[in-house]
Amino acid sequence: MRLSQEQVRQFRTQGYLILDRLFGPEEAEALQDAFQRDSLIPGDHRVAEQDGGEVRAVYASHTRQPEFAALIRTPRVLGPVRQLLGGEAYIYQFKINAKAPFSGAGWSWHQDFAAWQMADELRLPRLVNVGVFLDEVNEFNGPVIFCPGSHRDGLVKKGRAAGPAASEQHVDPEDIALTAADMTGLVERHGLVSAKGAAGTVVLFDPEIVHGSAPNMAPFRRRLLIVTYNDVTNVPQPVGAPRPEYVVGRDTAPLELTDQEIVPALEVMV
Amino acid sequence: MRLSQEQVRQFRTQGYLILDRLFGPEEAEALQDAFQRDSLIPGDHRVAEQDGGEVRAVYASHTRQPEFAALIRTPRVLGPVRQLLGGEAYIYQFKINAKAPFSGAGWSWHQDFAAWQMADELRLPRLVNVGVFLDEVNEFNGPVIFCPGSHRDGLVKKGRAAGPAASEQHVDPEDIALTAADMTGLVERHGLVSAKGAAGTVVLFDPEIVHGSAPNMAPFRRRLLIVTYNDVTNVPQPVGAPRPEYVVGRDTAPLELTDQEIVPALEVMV
Repeated sequence: MRLSQEQVRQFRTQGYLILDRLFGPEEAEALQDAFQRDSLIPGDHRVAEQDGGEVRAVYASHTRQPEFAALIRTPRVLGPVRQLLGGEAYIYQFKINAKAPFSGAGWSWHQDFAAWQMADELRLPRLVNVGVFLDEVNEFNGPVIFCPGSHRDGLVKKGRAAGPAASEQHVDPEDIALTAADMTGLVERHGLVSAKGAAGTVVLFDPEIVHGSAPNMAPFRRRLLIVTYNDVTNVPQPVGAPRPEYVVGRDTAPLELTDQEIVPALEVMV
Repeated sequence: MRLSQEQVRQFRTQGYLILDRLFGPEEAEALQDAFQRDSLIPGDHRVAEQDGGEVRAVYASHTRQPEFAALIRTPRVLGPVRQLLGGEAYIYQFKINAKAPFSGAGWSWHQDFAAWQMADELRLPRLVNVGVFLDEVNEFNGPVIFCPGSHRDGLVKKGRAAGPAASEQHVDPEDIALTAADMTGLVERHGLVSAKGAAGTVVLFDPEIVHGSAPNMAPFRRRLLIVTYNDVTNVPQPVGAPRPEYVVGRDTAPLELTDQEIVPALEVMV
């Protein structure tokens, strides 16, 4: 699949692009089931909410579940990603943010690349984020909110980038959170927009776009899968110990397209 | 001013009614200025956010600022209130929730009447809440979210009502917060809807409607004035000490309509 020129222009100027229901209801359901299965597997790749029991995020599910292995290579996703990068891609990070009903906390305003530059000494923002809605996202269950066009201003917090490579599992968004003063100017210039849509909808977004989200107020789930693809010519070179492989992928070989279905064949045949 | 039969029906069945821009831009600005002035007056009637400095709420501004004294008696508000109550009204509570940019916390899901029954031994839910948007309310700055029609189910937490009259300044919404289990059933039956609109917009809502709100994520203010009118035949009779007068009004004389303008006459003449 290739994006239209209008879609490419939208991504370049606004920093995000919504592909409504790129995956169908059966595919969304298969991905939900795969996440359900994967979130039962204990390990450091599974992050709990600060207040206790609920799963906040799970990393690297594409290395454990065939549905996600198919997802990251499907032409519907990898095609547009290669097109936007203008080159070959590998998986930099794969995570699913669960944002459980009632207890799922929000995310402060931040830019992803600030974290990756700081934690991984990643040089260039030559990445594309692909968000896949495993559930319907509406105004009540904490949609991602973008400050459209903010990616074109570059990193707001340039000073923070000088620090050494962090060894933590994942960068706390609070560490790279933008201030009220930062946001006032950005929102005056760019406004705000939220990414909402049916389950199976995909949102592509730039690694430098300013974004955040409110907590989940609703009794609906809001599971959001985010695959971050990096340009194979932009592999990070950390001075210290790299972050764990489930957080930052080390298999930097170019991903190949697959025609493997996301819905397991057995289920299709039933 | 009288509501149409359709508007009355909407209020009775849904538990809320939005009156778009009931107040004009100059009036909204005069109310903003009056709140600004009033929020500088120290005292127990001024409540801070839990994390410190910002003002979370101010009570009883109608006893200190002429704009609010005019607002509570204007036929545009008092007319519909009398119509919905089917009788004379007095001010039970007057508060302004500031919900400051970035730092304004949300409110858990609750029913107002649960608090008043518990804290004030108020007998019947013969009240009307009038919310006045001092600022534009949009999806980013924490709109009030209603569970429409939920008022018709009565109080969810009936058990809590048996307690003695509380002596605290105000009831913490966490004390009367509905659980995830409560909300799942309610939202399955009724759905959710948020009250958004331009500054000057008014939302009338039932004292038993289930509602809550997310924190303010945006660099926009979201100052919401809420006047609660009670039926003069429904005066609470607390067994213990009543709550402070700035929280629960003791002047139960029927309010008279006024033709006094909200925008001060001097400013009109300039």
